[in-house]
Amino acid sequence: MERSQIDAVIERIESTEAQGQGDERIKEIVNRLTRDLFYAIEDLDIQPEEIWKAVDWLTLTGKNNEWGLVAAGIGLEHFLDLRMDEAEARAGITGGTPRTIEGPLYVPGAPESVGYAELETVPEVGGERLYMQGQVRDENGKPVPHAKVEVWHCNLRGMYSIFDTSQPPYNLRRAIITDEQGRYRFKSILPVGYSCPPGGATDQFLKAVGRHGSRPAHIHFFVTAPGYRKLTTQINIEGDPLIWDDFAFATREELVPHITRYSEAEAKEKFGIDEPFASIDFDFEIHKEKAGVFSAEIERTHGPA
Amino acid sequence: MERSQIDAVIERIESTEAQGQGDERIKEIVNRLTRDLFYAIEDLDIQPEEIWKAVDWLTLTGKNNEWGLVAAGIGLEHFLDLRMDEAEARAGITGGTPRTIEGPLYVPGAPESVGYAELETVPEVGGERLYMQGQVRDENGKPVPHAKVEVWHCNLRGMYSIFDTSQPPYNLRRAIITDEQGRYRFKSILPVGYSCPPGGATDQFLKAVGRHGSRPAHIHFFVTAPGYRKLTTQINIEGDPLIWDDFAFATREELVPHITRYSEAEAKEKFGIDEPFASIDFDFEIHKEKAGVFSAEIERTHGPA
Repeated sequence: MERSQIDAVIERIESTEAQGQGDERIKEIVNRLTRDLFYAIEDLDIQPEEIWKAVDWLTLTGKNNEWGLVAAGIGLEHFLDLRMDEAEARAGITGGTPRTIEGPLYVPGAPESVGYAELETVPEVGGERLYMQGQVRDENGKPVPHAKVEVWHCNLRGMYSIFDTSQPPYNLRRAIITDEQGRYRFKSILPVGYSCPPGGATDQFLKAVGRHGSRPAHIHFFVTAPGYRKLTTQINIEGDPLIWDDFAFATREELVPHITRYSEAEAKEKFGIDEPFASIDFDFEIHKEKAGVFSAEIERTHGPA
Repeated sequence: MERSQIDAVIERIESTEAQGQGDERIKEIVNRLTRDLFYAIEDLDIQPEEIWKAVDWLTLTGKNNEWGLVAAGIGLEHFLDLRMDEAEARAGITGGTPRTIEGPLYVPGAPESVGYAELETVPEVGGERLYMQGQVRDENGKPVPHAKVEVWHCNLRGMYSIFDTSQPPYNLRRAIITDEQGRYRFKSILPVGYSCPPGGATDQFLKAVGRHGSRPAHIHFFVTAPGYRKLTTQINIEGDPLIWDDFAFATREELVPHITRYSEAEAKEKFGIDEPFASIDFDFEIHKEKAGVFSAEIERTHGPA
């Protein structure tokens, strides 16, 4: 069909949208996306069977609650980060710890403590002990006391508590309030990489486009403090072979801190700790809130379906 | 962001698609739709919250199994009809009974009979008695014996059996094999209009764009016969105020047959029938199969989730 014929079909559809009813913004977005879709169907001669197969996949993605994974997998969530970076830069907000995607697996309500937390609700078996510590600072290098550092990561099977009900609720999820010097510290294990549920909608999709659905090992963070812009970020675990091959495109240069490893003897001698451990030092630099800039507190539905 | 920057992001994503793995056609479609989406996000400055709200709606649509309704409601299913009409016309296939959308509520396996069927498994209470009859013919006017006329419609509450488990299975769903003269006839009730489930994903979407989610009263048909192209169509019930305001855009001029109504006396006297009834005469004209044209037997998943 000619573009003009397609436009006529679309205009007929749009003409059924009552003036003054509904939401003008949603109309604008829906009409744009419908037109894009119809043009793509024409340009690529997409067949009805292809549409109905896609419909089955869309249905499965919803039933499995996998849209958050798909949004990460098509690079959409990373693209939103880049657009937020740009919007902040236009407002003069630059530098600091880079944001990267939240992902779909945060859950609010984790146990809160001041200065220090142990992330394991019950000790993980195996893996490598981790201590991670640092300071929350503002853009002038001034410590931010009483900031909240929310941290969550997967266990040694790549699974997140709450979503994985075989773990105690909130296992490997904590909220740490920084001390008077803006410092936080936690004890945990080094997580392994995450992979999309095998055979699920995201996995099917990624296989169909010749991609994998795995992420390098990482730890998620929200850093918030009154008067500051919320920071949503992650660190990667140095040495993971997928660091630059993340299916979610979330890795950023500044977010791969060095890991220092201490032997059992060093751990005992230098720190009085009874086991060998990996140590990560990482400081968060957050931005003061600024009028007229989008809110960095992004509303999003959390938790399993 | 500039188009060139967006393109660079997309190229990075596409570069992860392994050559020779996956499906080249799906890659082509996915890459086009991703680019369209990213451009739309930029052009309309779509905010992360808007994306996450959309993700919630996508999830609900899948969980409710409403993608078939949404495909109808955005005019996509009608658009596919127009494209199939055009593809047939290019192959010299024109005229005959027009196709119109299948909709998401067909279920295979309805009881089959020759020449005549009663569609009610148990008699509907209230409503208007309907007899509908006609002939299946080919493009030269020749009757097609042993053609299969599959018919399905909703009950007096606008609900379809199988999906609505309060009805007997296959109520108001039958398959009629035409007789030696290509004739079919059935007894039923005049259906009422259909409306999308109130409060569901489709209803939410349509309200947001200032539209309703109702269809005029209609009866669905598949007409198939060996050596002929499958016809997917519907008739509308004359007089329905929504005939030209169908949320699914499925009405076509040639598909609104005249209804003749017979009083109790006329029914008794002329037809020996003990109740007043509405009568619809409708012939189906189907096309001989033709090599090199897309199959009109469109594969699609049927039935409730």
